[in-house]
Amino acid sequence: MSVTAPAGFDAAGVAVGLKSSGKRDVALVVNRGPLKVGAAVFTSNRAKANPILWSEQVIRDGVVEAIVLNSGGANCFTGAFGFQTTHLTAERVGELLEVGAGDVLVCSTGLIGTGDEVFRAKVLEGVAQSVAALDAESGQAAAEAIMTTDSVSKTVVRSEDGWTIGGMAKGAGMLAPGLATMLVVLTTDAVLDAADADAHLRAATRVSFDRLDSDGCMSTNDQVTLLASGASGVVPDPDAFRRALTEVCLDLAVQLQADAEGASHSIRITVVHAATEDEAVEVARSVARNNLFKAAIFGNDPNWGRVLAAIGTTQAQFDPYAVDVEMNGVRVCSNGGPDRPREEVDLTPRETEVVIDLKVGDATATIYTNDLTHDYVHENSAYSS
Amino acid sequence: MSVTAPAGFDAAGVAVGLKSSGKRDVALVVNRGPLKVGAAVFTSNRAKANPILWSEQVIRDGVVEAIVLNSGGANCFTGAFGFQTTHLTAERVGELLEVGAGDVLVCSTGLIGTGDEVFRAKVLEGVAQSVAALDAESGQAAAEAIMTTDSVSKTVVRSEDGWTIGGMAKGAGMLAPGLATMLVVLTTDAVLDAADADAHLRAATRVSFDRLDSDGCMSTNDQVTLLASGASGVVPDPDAFRRALTEVCLDLAVQLQADAEGASHSIRITVVHAATEDEAVEVARSVARNNLFKAAIFGNDPNWGRVLAAIGTTQAQFDPYAVDVEMNGVRVCSNGGPDRPREEVDLTPRETEVVIDLKVGDATATIYTNDLTHDYVHENSAYSS
Repeated sequence: MSVTAPAGFDAAGVAVGLKSSGKRDVALVVNRGPLKVGAAVFTSNRAKANPILWSEQVIRDGVVEAIVLNSGGANCFTGAFGFQTTHLTAERVGELLEVGAGDVLVCSTGLIGTGDEVFRAKVLEGVAQSVAALDAESGQAAAEAIMTTDSVSKTVVRSEDGWTIGGMAKGAGMLAPGLATMLVVLTTDAVLDAADADAHLRAATRVSFDRLDSDGCMSTNDQVTLLASGASGVVPDPDAFRRALTEVCLDLAVQLQADAEGASHSIRITVVHAATEDEAVEVARSVARNNLFKAAIFGNDPNWGRVLAAIGTTQAQFDPYAVDVEMNGVRVCSNGGPDRPREEVDLTPRETEVVIDLKVGDATATIYTNDLTHDYVHENSAYSS
Repeated sequence: MSVTAPAGFDAAGVAVGLKSSGKRDVALVVNRGPLKVGAAVFTSNRAKANPILWSEQVIRDGVVEAIVLNSGGANCFTGAFGFQTTHLTAERVGELLEVGAGDVLVCSTGLIGTGDEVFRAKVLEGVAQSVAALDAESGQAAAEAIMTTDSVSKTVVRSEDGWTIGGMAKGAGMLAPGLATMLVVLTTDAVLDAADADAHLRAATRVSFDRLDSDGCMSTNDQVTLLASGASGVVPDPDAFRRALTEVCLDLAVQLQADAEGASHSIRITVVHAATEDEAVEVARSVARNNLFKAAIFGNDPNWGRVLAAIGTTQAQFDPYAVDVEMNGVRVCSNGGPDRPREEVDLTPRETEVVIDLKVGDATATIYTNDLTHDYVHENSAYSS
């Protein structure tokens, strides 16, 4: 059900040939109200795709009628023609739904530089087919239509105290902070105003999608959108809603991590006893981005020296000769020196846990990453061919 | 000849079993004077190996009698015992050469965490054998003794106006700024004082080794040392000496790049028309560290979208929609949009050139990097096993 699980939302997912596989490639989610609240966060990459440039304007007034998404082409670095395509896409949705184009968000994903006349024609055809196919059962079809190299669709539904949150996500590579290469649509029938929706979304993404760093590469097209219909008539407890939204985002983030291109390990890197949360994030991210560490995990090698070499590049407060490192529960390094033998660490399971104790303060953070594998290299060397 | 090419230097390279292959693994370079000038730059990693901690003290007075180097073990994160090993190594060299231990530099390279009793015994045995083997012909043997995963030894000799510079380097992975995973010894018979030697060395490394960023991973053991014997009796023209030293360093840096673990492309990323040199470096480095770009080059895919996505993560001054990108002479992107077809770019040669025109100012910089390959993943997943 994904985005159609909460009351007040219709969706569709259709195939118009943007993907050479013939699979679904255009999705539409429409908020039937009574509220038309929207909030969104965008990639922090300065190289922003045309749909991002458009959607940043749409979201300003907190009113969103619909969101249209395509896979099979990023419409990024496609010049004025590409921006016009995004604009035309929103206008076509607006015409067919009889809403303002300025209340229609647009997302695109696929190869950067793709956005020619053929692309435009197919997207506009996809809009027409999607509007015709809209219903309250097609959340799954929409989730499939946004997949690119994803091997499975990612959806989540969570209900609580009379309201529901639904979500769908796509993303399998270029997963890094300032969002990952991903598109996420979250829907809820809870009664929220735009300011609350924005605050809840920022709080939830800060500790979920922004902590996902599969390969250190930041996308040009990322967007996470929350739409609220108010159709449940229930005003949620703010803390409960934020907690639930955060859990939903983390659930989707972990689904993205589990399906990261070519990865054989899902690695949680937790830094404890850091001076500040920002420093815990910085230290964990330095390890998550270290190719030698990532290759070692692929080889089931608990190479803690590479962990210390990575964290030594940060500016965080700690003494390298006081740091402890645990891998899958075995303390392989204590006080910056060898502790338990490497042979005691079992790295054969996909789920891998690294805990780094800085022994400085009380702050903690976790970064979610993946290993560096032959398949990652293969998939990303062949992507555009 | 490498380090023994300039007058006033003896060297040795011996095998004592630190490498399981039985190849040479301990090197010694001795300055016979009349000057005993030394300068060194070290890894900027805060996680520093024991030999770095020792050598940072030795270099303070600018007087160096000898430098001893071992492969087969990094002696990093080996605790107080490891530091004592480094200290004992310098003392043993000092005793046998009848010089002060405080004028003996020590370098180690190999697996982090290696530095036990067996390691210590072998290194000390290597010192004894090296001192016995010292002569003015063994520069090549010394260069071989510092190799780890290097497939070839790296040496250089350059003579000019009555003075000579010789050098040897090792390094094949963990190559990143703040030096690469490498040890470099440069010798000269030019007459230099310690302050000049230090200034020349810093100027030369800033635009050579510090611009080598093979895999974004910064080592714990890096050291580049310049020893001056003054044996030529010639006081060099400062500009000519600095230029020659810079060319020698760049020659060795490119040799390291050419032998980088598993790489199939040596990639020069040049940023032109940046606002400042620092910004040119920042932009070029962002591309050099982008795994998706590096995997694309491995796949002979001129994926310029990944170049723009990478530079969009920097804080440098530029408009993403004004940037041009050339690959091997073909302008694939102009003003942030597609230009020549990808098919025109031939990426089959190992040497790859990417030029990014920011169109902002007059500054230029080049970063030297490698592609991300199956072999890189393989070699670095199996390194410690």
